[in-house]
Amino acid sequence: MAENDIDNLIQLLAKLPGLGPRSARRAALHLVKNRDRLMSPLANALKETAETIRACSECGNLDSRDPCAICRDERRDRATLCVVEDVADLWAIERTASYRGLYHVLGGVLSALDGVGPDDLRIPRLAARAEAASVTEVILALPATVDGQTTAHYIGDRLAALDVSISGIAHGVPVGGELDYLDDGTLSQALKARRPV
Amino acid sequence: MAENDIDNLIQLLAKLPGLGPRSARRAALHLVKNRDRLMSPLANALKETAETIRACSECGNLDSRDPCAICRDERRDRATLCVVEDVADLWAIERTASYRGLYHVLGGVLSALDGVGPDDLRIPRLAARAEAASVTEVILALPATVDGQTTAHYIGDRLAALDVSISGIAHGVPVGGELDYLDDGTLSQALKARRPV
Repeated sequence: MAENDIDNLIQLLAKLPGLGPRSARRAALHLVKNRDRLMSPLANALKETAETIRACSECGNLDSRDPCAICRDERRDRATLCVVEDVADLWAIERTASYRGLYHVLGGVLSALDGVGPDDLRIPRLAARAEAASVTEVILALPATVDGQTTAHYIGDRLAALDVSISGIAHGVPVGGELDYLDDGTLSQALKARRPV
Repeated sequence: MAENDIDNLIQLLAKLPGLGPRSARRAALHLVKNRDRLMSPLANALKETAETIRACSECGNLDSRDPCAICRDERRDRATLCVVEDVADLWAIERTASYRGLYHVLGGVLSALDGVGPDDLRIPRLAARAEAASVTEVILALPATVDGQTTAHYIGDRLAALDVSISGIAHGVPVGGELDYLDDGTLSQALKARRPV
């Protein structure tokens, strides 16, 4: 095995999600072979991002400026807040290009098992934002897990007294999904939430 | 989607082998969340490796010093050269800890289709090294592909006039391999190369 420098690089690469020791070695070799095209730009991008990226103080999104690009964007609908667990979920919704409101990133979901309470998440900040007169709707786009749905219920209760409509995203059959391959829980949810055609 | 800095980072990460767009996003988020523990060290490791790592002028191994750690190591057997296609193969053999000689990294194999000739590889340098009086054995650890075996034959011919013994690594049943699941080529090789017990 080669010495110090490249070993150190391989060990750090192996800590990335999705890369094991073998693929980290492959990535390190690929980087060394593409020094100018990939390795140096990646080093700079990492350094720059590490220095500049911050969580938006409004919504919790990641950006190099605060407030983030979404909160700054004048064309977005300021009356709607979409509550998500994580920045990855925000990105996923942005990719659909079907939502034009603002976001609120919780930074996790409530979990009795892991000892995560409302004050560990950005729930107090959400309550403050939802109180503003400009906000009329809060959409809860939280994961369809026990913890995710517990969090949705908690937020629903907490915001109940406010003059905002609160909704959760629909659960049902995924687009392109075969009924035969779906789990019973999803299928019974889809039946319960049936809509007139 | 977040702006410039982090998008740029994701695009660079997605160019690594084994990472697609989705896993690059996951890796970027993981990096931002582990800024001090992972992101800054990785940026430094990349910068340092990009600046220092070079191919060893003797054997072609990658190291921050030239000659490389293996060529410098006085305890290694200087009479044996193990010829490999790539640095990854050198690492694989080093991990077995069962070889104590020196290496020669070709940097590829001959390929009529891709127009790779002997002078595109480090074959002239291998011939020069094998001529040295100190070298008595050359082991060809090249891939068991058509191009790999063509390269092995070519090197065998080219070094035939020299006073060195030339061998190829054994082909046969992998350790732990079930005969039933092996391809016919490997099995017939293993039969032909049978050895007294």
